[in-house]
Amino acid sequence: MLKLKLPTDPRWANIAEKNIEEILTDHAFCEQKAASTAISLIITYPELSDLVTEMSALAREEMSHFEMVHKHILKRGYKLGRERKDEYVGKLVKYFPQTPDRNLRLVHRLLVAALIEARSCERFKVLSENISDKELAKFYGSLMESEANHYTLFITFARKYGNREEVDKLWDGLLTYEAELMKDLGTSELIHG
Amino acid sequence: MLKLKLPTDPRWANIAEKNIEEILTDHAFCEQKAASTAISLIITYPELSDLVTEMSALAREEMSHFEMVHKHILKRGYKLGRERKDEYVGKLVKYFPQTPDRNLRLVHRLLVAALIEARSCERFKVLSENISDKELAKFYGSLMESEANHYTLFITFARKYGNREEVDKLWDGLLTYEAELMKDLGTSELIHG
Repeated sequence: MLKLKLPTDPRWANIAEKNIEEILTDHAFCEQKAASTAISLIITYPELSDLVTEMSALAREEMSHFEMVHKHILKRGYKLGRERKDEYVGKLVKYFPQTPDRNLRLVHRLLVAALIEARSCERFKVLSENISDKELAKFYGSLMESEANHYTLFITFARKYGNREEVDKLWDGLLTYEAELMKDLGTSELIHG
Repeated sequence: MLKLKLPTDPRWANIAEKNIEEILTDHAFCEQKAASTAISLIITYPELSDLVTEMSALAREEMSHFEMVHKHILKRGYKLGRERKDEYVGKLVKYFPQTPDRNLRLVHRLLVAALIEARSCERFKVLSENISDKELAKFYGSLMESEANHYTLFITFARKYGNREEVDKLWDGLLTYEAELMKDLGTSELIHG
């Protein structure tokens, strides 16, 4: 289902594991940002009742994941650190050109959100298969399925609100751009680092 | 428990009831803004583990209330409208002077949040006792308890992170200011209007 064009080098998991407090903090804020993105879509497109319904449920789910990550942080004697800038996401949102077409802006946002979910899913898979903390490995395995579902949710909405053929073309372009970005990543203890 | 200094004129409920779509939309966004405020406190004070724990649960609860309101909107054949500015909250957040004291800023934010919850609770009570839509009346009755709990949560944290005596003095001043604001309100179909 997920067809990212450049897989993460599994050695990234070793870098991540060397600083569990950092990766968990970054992960917690990824969940918070996902919740905030869902809320932002509600504010921008309140009239799309199906989108609002799904985004409000999604925001709630992302906050429950935040809580789970926070519990893992506290359980290990750590504290949630400061939010760190997500440069990957910062570059991703710059891919699509600005447009006065409100509907197309929605499609763009949905595709970017889909890709972040897809990459997060892949990163969680790498963590679940490579880190030695068994409890966390299991946790990341369980979160993979959610991220995959969220990816499907965003892609489905993009195809609903955009022209199917055009959306698939935009998606392919975004995937190619993302693979280029990923060439320079996989080197830091961040979920998208 | 809630000691607001100026009660809402129950006639406000008649104004609200005349435009149920509008009041429900405004209410939905109140819940969303409450969730966003909780998230903002997490981002600003990530090291306060007890606050982060409670605020993440609160954000989730507020989003579940948002979902409930949205269901009431759809059930009545309406759509969520655009977010409207909350002038009441806008004036409330200007009450406390800016301060370089990070801890005091937290106390200020907690007290303002407590007051918004307290006033929302009171407004929900007025709605529950005065509107003719029985289902909505019951719904507002059930939400009152949550708002009262949130008020207690914020006041408790304010007293934990601030000096109890000072906090009580700040709270009293804020209540007096809020009562002044309320003199001009109660005239529009907004939860805090």
